[in-house]
Amino acid sequence: MKRILLFLSVMGLVANSQAEIKSKAVEYKQGETILEGLSVQDDAIRGKRPAVLVVHQWKGLGEYEKKRAEMLARMGYNVIAADIYGKGIRPDNPKDAAFEAAKYKDNRALLRARVAAGLEVLRKHDLTDPKRVAAIGYCFGGTTVLELARSGAEISGVVSFHGGLSTPTPADAKNIKCKVLACHGADDPFVPPKEVAAFEEEMRQGGADWQLISYGGAVHAFTDSNAGNDNSKGAAYNEKADKRSWEAMKQLFSELFK
Amino acid sequence: MKRILLFLSVMGLVANSQAEIKSKAVEYKQGETILEGLSVQDDAIRGKRPAVLVVHQWKGLGEYEKKRAEMLARMGYNVIAADIYGKGIRPDNPKDAAFEAAKYKDNRALLRARVAAGLEVLRKHDLTDPKRVAAIGYCFGGTTVLELARSGAEISGVVSFHGGLSTPTPADAKNIKCKVLACHGADDPFVPPKEVAAFEEEMRQGGADWQLISYGGAVHAFTDSNAGNDNSKGAAYNEKADKRSWEAMKQLFSELFK
Repeated sequence: MKRILLFLSVMGLVANSQAEIKSKAVEYKQGETILEGLSVQDDAIRGKRPAVLVVHQWKGLGEYEKKRAEMLARMGYNVIAADIYGKGIRPDNPKDAAFEAAKYKDNRALLRARVAAGLEVLRKHDLTDPKRVAAIGYCFGGTTVLELARSGAEISGVVSFHGGLSTPTPADAKNIKCKVLACHGADDPFVPPKEVAAFEEEMRQGGADWQLISYGGAVHAFTDSNAGNDNSKGAAYNEKADKRSWEAMKQLFSELFK
Repeated sequence: MKRILLFLSVMGLVANSQAEIKSKAVEYKQGETILEGLSVQDDAIRGKRPAVLVVHQWKGLGEYEKKRAEMLARMGYNVIAADIYGKGIRPDNPKDAAFEAAKYKDNRALLRARVAAGLEVLRKHDLTDPKRVAAIGYCFGGTTVLELARSGAEISGVVSFHGGLSTPTPADAKNIKCKVLACHGADDPFVPPKEVAAFEEEMRQGGADWQLISYGGAVHAFTDSNAGNDNSKGAAYNEKADKRSWEAMKQLFSELFK
């Protein structure tokens, strides 16, 4: 038995040393706007596979989203990190980030068009099994993937991590065809209880297949280790909630892609 | 490689055929009251192991709880299904069940004493690793394990499935030493939004390590396949929420017992 375990372990090591996460920029368009996303895969895996779209926080596609995309690629998914803002538009301070995010929060039709463009790139990618596609998003990206669901996108599921839950068109929840998981910091001052209650009512009225997890002690940005650890600022990293929400996403994916 | 997989698969089959779930009644006392629980283990596993206390629904310890205890035993846990009501007290209709449950809901000190007596049996059991103990409960049992947490019990975690979340002594949440997971049917008319909000505030004020999952489309008793499938009755089985909440419990256990 020991020899077999040793053998399997060596096989595992070989597989690991072969695994190489490849990422490269991909340009695509929505209307006349040039967008620059990131395409990430594990080179050691061959053939079509389930695929995940990753949507960025309010500062636009950056290192944080790249890290998440790589984590997903390592799990065997074909990943595109989408760009909602446009090539080169990467606000580096909260004021500019809020300004940029507001453009799309205030124009949901544009937001839907932008995320749909990224989804199209993912769906048509050589390595994507187009019947097994999900989307996840963080903060602004959480709002975005919920909007994608409300648009009636033909995907398997969406996961929002500390995303804003409000919508100007709650009746659109009736269009939702995919499973919805919202991972929410119970102390998030930017997504207050009233907004959570409205979201739950929206999902209920729309007849969606939805779940919402409230993580005690977690505020906004709880998955982002760059957010510091001072809850009183309203945004802070929370390791427990980060790990738990990632596991919850994996659990949903195992249901979607079984 | 094929031969190795075949070999491992045969080993697995051997292990399965050896596994035998043993259950037997255990009498114990709380004060002068005789209680009759159920002790359940997988005979194929040797030695001490993590342990789980299972607390029953409003009709008392029965087939439903036995099934859950067996599922846990198969996963490798040492299990006691507790008896809160007393030996032979197994109300078989809603009126009597409500009457019996109310005795304890209205006397939380007695409820805590009863569940503590069961926990003691589990903790002192030969096969229990006393540092790795959790408690789960359904409906009335969910309320009970939350009360166990509020009593300051030295266990690793509690999971409530469609349990009532209210308490007459919210300040006791400061005593909580274990992780708390509440699995809640978002449409449960017996645990309305106001009660959920009060629970979240209680946990927050008490500084507990807590999570609450709301399952869309699920009402009371969503894990119980005997509850029918008519949501309009307020209690009904929901297969998705049943499976998802079981997975959420397993995820918490893997965190507790790693």
